[in-house]
Amino acid sequence: MKINGRHYRTIWLNPDGRSVEVIDQSKLPHSFETQTLSSFGDAVEAIKNMIVRGAPLIGVTGAYGLALAVADDPADNAIEAAYAELLGSRPTAVNLRWALDRLRDRLFSTPPPMRRTLAYSEAAAIADDDIQACHAIGEYGAALISAAAPRCPDRPVNILTHCNAGWLAAVDWGTALAPIYKAARAGVAVHVWVDETRPRNQGASLTAFELLGEAIPHTIIADNTGGHLMQHGLVDLCIVGSDRTTRAGDVCNKIGTYLKALAAHDNSVPFYVALPSSTIDWRISDGLREIRIEERDQSEVTHICGRTERGETARVRLTPHGSPARNFGFDVTPARLVSALITERGACAANEAALQSLFPNLANSA
Amino acid sequence: MKINGRHYRTIWLNPDGRSVEVIDQSKLPHSFETQTLSSFGDAVEAIKNMIVRGAPLIGVTGAYGLALAVADDPADNAIEAAYAELLGSRPTAVNLRWALDRLRDRLFSTPPPMRRTLAYSEAAAIADDDIQACHAIGEYGAALISAAAPRCPDRPVNILTHCNAGWLAAVDWGTALAPIYKAARAGVAVHVWVDETRPRNQGASLTAFELLGEAIPHTIIADNTGGHLMQHGLVDLCIVGSDRTTRAGDVCNKIGTYLKALAAHDNSVPFYVALPSSTIDWRISDGLREIRIEERDQSEVTHICGRTERGETARVRLTPHGSPARNFGFDVTPARLVSALITERGACAANEAALQSLFPNLANSA
Repeated sequence: MKINGRHYRTIWLNPDGRSVEVIDQSKLPHSFETQTLSSFGDAVEAIKNMIVRGAPLIGVTGAYGLALAVADDPADNAIEAAYAELLGSRPTAVNLRWALDRLRDRLFSTPPPMRRTLAYSEAAAIADDDIQACHAIGEYGAALISAAAPRCPDRPVNILTHCNAGWLAAVDWGTALAPIYKAARAGVAVHVWVDETRPRNQGASLTAFELLGEAIPHTIIADNTGGHLMQHGLVDLCIVGSDRTTRAGDVCNKIGTYLKALAAHDNSVPFYVALPSSTIDWRISDGLREIRIEERDQSEVTHICGRTERGETARVRLTPHGSPARNFGFDVTPARLVSALITERGACAANEAALQSLFPNLANSA
Repeated sequence: MKINGRHYRTIWLNPDGRSVEVIDQSKLPHSFETQTLSSFGDAVEAIKNMIVRGAPLIGVTGAYGLALAVADDPADNAIEAAYAELLGSRPTAVNLRWALDRLRDRLFSTPPPMRRTLAYSEAAAIADDDIQACHAIGEYGAALISAAAPRCPDRPVNILTHCNAGWLAAVDWGTALAPIYKAARAGVAVHVWVDETRPRNQGASLTAFELLGEAIPHTIIADNTGGHLMQHGLVDLCIVGSDRTTRAGDVCNKIGTYLKALAAHDNSVPFYVALPSSTIDWRISDGLREIRIEERDQSEVTHICGRTERGETARVRLTPHGSPARNFGFDVTPARLVSALITERGACAANEAALQSLFPNLANSA
C-alpha cells in the first residue's frame, strides 16, 4: 500500500539476492526508515524487538530468517537450531510456526545443496500467498461494510479497529484494514475509529499512519473510548485482526480486544475478526486455557517515545519511580462474542463446524 | 493522606485567611508543587486546566472559588455571575453544582456584610463534610474487601481501579481508594491493579503516586489489560469512583469505566462504585440520555508529558501529523452492571429504591 504516494510492501528481498529489507515499524509514525536483515540473527532480533510485528508479517519474516540461516549452513541440524530459535522469538502468534513448518518440511525433502535456492523461493511464495489471502479477506470484508452502508445514508460507515492489523502487520493490504481499503476503493464512504492501543500505541502510530497514506478518514481515540462510542450509535461495526484463532473460533489478539468485543455485544454492534487461515491453530479449541499470552517488558508501560516540538525523538517516563507495571501483550475473545470470522475463503460463524467446512483439509490434518 | 511521610489535604486555606492552596495535580507524579488560588479567576482556571480534578475536589474548589468572589464583591449579582462561571468550568461532575448551590443558598439568606466570613466557613465545612463522607465510605467499603479476603488465603485481595478516585480526587481519604486504605490499616493484605487511564493517565500519575505514599502494593497496567486479568482470576473485585450518579444508579465516571464493568460482569467479579451522596444527581434517571459528556481538547490524546532520563519534563507528540483525535472525558455504566454503590451511609444496590431508602430527604427534595 502507499506511503506518501509510493507503493511499498513491508518486507522484500534486496537485489543482492540474500539480504532482506523491512520497514522499521518501531520508528513509525515519526520517521520512515528501513532496516536490512543480513543474517539469521538480524531476523530474530527484528521479530523480538518488534521492528516487524503483526502475525502474518512475523510468519513471513520467520521464513526469510530461516532462508538466511540456510544460506549460511543448509545442514539438517543447522535448520533445526534456527527453526527452534525463530519459533521462540515471539510466543503467541501461530503464523510463525505455520510458516516455519511449511518451509522446514520442504527443506527436509530437498538435498542440502539445493536448499538455499528453495528457501528463498519458498519464503517469497509465503509472502505472495499472504498477499493473496489478504486481498481475498479484503473483498469478503468489503461486502460486509457495503451491506452496512444503506443504514448510514447521511454519513460514512463508522468502523472501529484495535491495534494494527493493516498492511504493516502483513505484507500488503492487511487483514482487518483490507476490507476498509477495498470498500473505500469501491466508493463506500468510511470513517475509522482508531484505538491508540496502549502500551505500544500501534493504533496511533501504525494504523493512523497507514490510513493517512491511503487517504481514509479516521479519528484517533484512547482505548477507553470505544464503549462510549458504541453506546451512542457512533460505531456501525468493529473489525480487528487475530494473532491466533482456535479451531472453535476463540480469538487471541492484541490486549484490549476482548473489552471492545464485550462492548460490541452489549450494544448489538457486529464484531468481525479478519484473519488468514495461517492464523488458525487447529490443535487447540479453548483459547483462554490453551494459548500462552506473551508478557513483555514493563518499560513499554512505564515509558513512551514521541516527538518533541523541535522534531527530536524523546523517550519519557510516565509513571512514578517505585511503581511496578505488567505488560500482557494479548487477550482472548471467546467465540461467543465474535459475529463472524473473515477469512480468505469467505466469512463464517466463529465455531468449529463453520471453520471446518471452509477449511476441511487443514482442519483434518491437524 | 501521606506524601513522603507527611500528611496533606488536597486543598487548604492559607494563613492570610483569603487565598487557597492546592496541590498542582497536573505536575504529578514527577514533581510535587502547590499552587495559590488568590482570586476567583484562579479557581476557575484551576478547575478548567485540571490543576485540581476529581468530582469531590472540584466541588470543594468551586466553593472556595465562590468565597474568593464574595471576598471581592458580596453583592447578589456578583455571586450569581461567579456561580454561573464556576458551574460552566467542568460540565460533567455534579458535585460542583451541589457545592455551589449549598453555598449560594446560605449566602442569599445572609446580609452582604456578613457573607465573606460565611463563605469561607461554609467552604471549609463542605471540605470537612467531604472528609467525613470519604471516611465513612472507607469503612463500609473496607468491610466488602475484608469479606473477600477469606477467598484469597495465600495471596492479597486483588482490587482493580480505574482513573483516580483517591484522596487526590477528594480532600482526604478519597472515594474508591478509601476502602483500600482502611482495609490495609485493618491488616487485610491488598494489591491494587492501577489502570493507567488514558488519555491523561490519572491512574499511573495520581493513583500509583498515592499508593506509593501509603505503601500499598500495586501494579500499573494499560487500560486494555483489565479484561484479561479478570478472565484469569487475577481480580477479586473492582472499585471505581463516580463523577455523577443518577437516581436510578447509572454511574458516569472516567471514560473506560464501562468497559471494565462489562468485563467484571462477564467474569462474575464484583464491581463496586464508591461515591459521596453529593455525587448523586437526583434530577435524572437515565445516565446515557441525560448526562452531558465533556469533550476535551484533542491535544490530550495526541501529546503526552513525561520525564526524560535527564529529569526534565518533556511534552511529546504520539500521533502522526494530519490524524485528528477525539477526547471524551467520561462514559456511563448502566446500573445493571454495578454490584453495589458504596456511600457514606452504607453500601446499597444500584437502583432507585435502594438509594431512596438510604437518602430519603435528598431523594424527595430533588
